[in-house]
Amino acid sequence: MSSFFPDLTLPIGVFDSGVGGLTVLNALREKLPASNFLYFADTARVPYGRKPPGMVRDFAFQIMEFLLQQNASHIVVACNTACAAALPELIRHSPVPVCGVIEPSVAVAAAATRNGCVGVIGTKATIASQVYQSALQARGLTAWAQACPMLVHLVEEGLVDSDEAELLVRHYLKQHPEIDTLILGCTHYPFLRHVVDRVLGNAVTLVSCADAVSDLIAHSLNGSSTAAALPPGKTVHITTGDAAAYRHTSALIGADVQGEVISLDEHLLSAKTK
Amino acid sequence: MSSFFPDLTLPIGVFDSGVGGLTVLNALREKLPASNFLYFADTARVPYGRKPPGMVRDFAFQIMEFLLQQNASHIVVACNTACAAALPELIRHSPVPVCGVIEPSVAVAAAATRNGCVGVIGTKATIASQVYQSALQARGLTAWAQACPMLVHLVEEGLVDSDEAELLVRHYLKQHPEIDTLILGCTHYPFLRHVVDRVLGNAVTLVSCADAVSDLIAHSLNGSSTAAALPPGKTVHITTGDAAAYRHTSALIGADVQGEVISLDEHLLSAKTK
Repeated sequence: MSSFFPDLTLPIGVFDSGVGGLTVLNALREKLPASNFLYFADTARVPYGRKPPGMVRDFAFQIMEFLLQQNASHIVVACNTACAAALPELIRHSPVPVCGVIEPSVAVAAAATRNGCVGVIGTKATIASQVYQSALQARGLTAWAQACPMLVHLVEEGLVDSDEAELLVRHYLKQHPEIDTLILGCTHYPFLRHVVDRVLGNAVTLVSCADAVSDLIAHSLNGSSTAAALPPGKTVHITTGDAAAYRHTSALIGADVQGEVISLDEHLLSAKTK
Repeated sequence: MSSFFPDLTLPIGVFDSGVGGLTVLNALREKLPASNFLYFADTARVPYGRKPPGMVRDFAFQIMEFLLQQNASHIVVACNTACAAALPELIRHSPVPVCGVIEPSVAVAAAATRNGCVGVIGTKATIASQVYQSALQARGLTAWAQACPMLVHLVEEGLVDSDEAELLVRHYLKQHPEIDTLILGCTHYPFLRHVVDRVLGNAVTLVSCADAVSDLIAHSLNGSSTAAALPPGKTVHITTGDAAAYRHTSALIGADVQGEVISLDEHLLSAKTK
């Protein structure tokens, strides 16, 4: 498969199971306005959070291979479940830099906490993998973790500002200990940030991986594409689902997609890599 | 593709986007103990409820074609969203009888209601299609319809007996008018039946398409395979997702799968029909 985007010079490839990674994409675009981006949403197979790690790993490799064929200069795995399942392997196999969302978020949380007690919410798979808990404990911090299986569905259904969101967020956070920092350990969750804020109050600092990762990448690329004199970059969106449905969901959650959206049959990915 | 199941003589093919149709399968097995069944769960592509009708129609045709190749004698479309999107077309193109879940449910509800006011809950796509409302109104009944986008996710996450289920069902049903009958217009919802009962109280009769459809089919097959003297039939389950995950979800919701489970790459379906 040759590049779909001959005009899209060395894009930064960003991928997620669905629309959640748009939080990361938007933070990156703000910090690197002259860069080109290729955003890959695997909406035909979302959610990853309850799928077996081996299956999520296969999906991640298929998508990484596709992004490399499109000449991605960097790959951002904007999906916590995929990072938990496969990040070290993805890094090992990629000829270009691969950045995940877990370590940057933990580093920001470690710098933010005052009482040393950090919470993390994520999908079942992310929480079960213990990656966040281990990384926090390795820094001498106390970790509280809560799986929130219904929250990704809220976002993918476009219900970010809904009674359903209020009910469910309140439910998942009702028994947290004395944390002063909470990692939103799923790229979908920043869309629910105002609900989480309302439920927890101002005493708890929220850490969004979108900010953590975009800071890190913008820092590492500093000087190459942030120059204000450069023309603005382009973004192309690829979805394995329906392009209109993708635009619709993105708009519902307040992350309107401006660029081109291409619907790619996910079968093409697996046919090629099987 | 030849038949996977040479020993499974003329099975009744039952399909759904996920585990919801197991309610229909189990009701059918009880009434037709000597019949063979092939249950197809398109778990790789669940949920159908927010996908565009054209996409759901394509999936339904792929699955029907697969079931016909496996020599299905009857096809039961145990998915309201697929029925709403494609049932008349499926019936037109199938050489064997095809039965949906909407008309049988409406017929049962029409017989059950005393005050003529019938409610229906379903996915966004089912409710938006107006198929239930039109069918109820055509019988001179008053229809109240409520889309419940999060309920399928509760079932597919195995959260049928959970605080999340209680919160969400209470939310969706809080503003119903004076209905005395409620159609569970999604084959996933019977798994939430006890929660719905608790929320509505005994004054409202619940109509499950599982009962409605199985009664109809058992009646039409009466005398052919219900004879007590026949040996018990077999059931094979096909999932487009992971077989272990399918067994796990089925067990979580109290619909343990006893028979063989085969994981079929859904790409095979579309590669063949495209």
